[in-house]
Amino acid sequence: MRHPEFLQAILERRSYRGRYADAPVPREDLRAILEAGLAAPSGCNKQTTSLIAVDEPALLSDLKALLGAPSCATAPTIICVLTRPIIAYGDRTYFVQDYAAAIENMLLAIRALGYESCWYEGRVTDGDIGDRMAKRLGVPDGYRLVCALPVGVAAEAPAAPKKKPFAERAWFNGFGAKE
Amino acid sequence: MRHPEFLQAILERRSYRGRYADAPVPREDLRAILEAGLAAPSGCNKQTTSLIAVDEPALLSDLKALLGAPSCATAPTIICVLTRPIIAYGDRTYFVQDYAAAIENMLLAIRALGYESCWYEGRVTDGDIGDRMAKRLGVPDGYRLVCALPVGVAAEAPAAPKKKPFAERAWFNGFGAKE
Repeated sequence: MRHPEFLQAILERRSYRGRYADAPVPREDLRAILEAGLAAPSGCNKQTTSLIAVDEPALLSDLKALLGAPSCATAPTIICVLTRPIIAYGDRTYFVQDYAAAIENMLLAIRALGYESCWYEGRVTDGDIGDRMAKRLGVPDGYRLVCALPVGVAAEAPAAPKKKPFAERAWFNGFGAKE
Repeated sequence: MRHPEFLQAILERRSYRGRYADAPVPREDLRAILEAGLAAPSGCNKQTTSLIAVDEPALLSDLKALLGAPSCATAPTIICVLTRPIIAYGDRTYFVQDYAAAIENMLLAIRALGYESCWYEGRVTDGDIGDRMAKRLGVPDGYRLVCALPVGVAAEAPAAPKKKPFAERAWFNGFGAKE
């Protein structure tokens, strides 16, 4: 394999819900994470995803109060993911796929740079929390805030969720085929 | 930065629509690509995404005939992405986010291993092509075939799409904020 360490990083990514250490995330790293997000593909290259990284203390504090997630409370940075829910062609939309791919790129970049994160979407979009966060950030009409990613150095040992074995989810040349 | 080559691989990924070289993709590499896909997060850890890698010549030929995409015609392998469109909790579903994150992981693994690919979704799901591919692969009810990823060595120079500059899509501490 040409890049085994790359594949290893993909395999080692997991959601972190513990406390974050009292250590800032340098702007250089944050910018690299945002660039990774923007590098994701998008349906018909519509580039429907936009990002806001928040590290300004007062703003961060307001967003954390809105989010109300204990595992975001100690994060030194939160990245907010915005989407424009527009048509790609005909009646088809791909904005969900677009922002999901961007989020996954960022989760991988966050890990590659030595930080942890977790994909918060339901908490943001089930009610009006995302709309209130968007208002606080000056997000104009036409954009929807759909996800928050805390970013920081872990202060606790991360835990990996239990996953089904390969043979129950992936096959060669036919559904459920034996190798 | 701890893993600059990792971030570089994310930045260099792009959709490839050219011809593929007459070179197989070893099963070891294919398996690593599938494992990368399965390693993606999923809403409430529902693991809604399943994968079928196809490299058996007769089956591959049938799938290519159904797909009808010129840029898939020369690929030595096609990975088919399946989803189970189930509820995660309440009335919320995350299966689109789940398979999009899995696809992005696979696109990155494909690049890391020296291959090219392209995310074919609309062609598969706009009409009944995905359903017919699923039937050919023995996919049972409850699963939907939503994406095809050709995998192979490029025979032509890939082209990158034009993307908006960073400052039009990402900011710090507020929508459209200057750094």
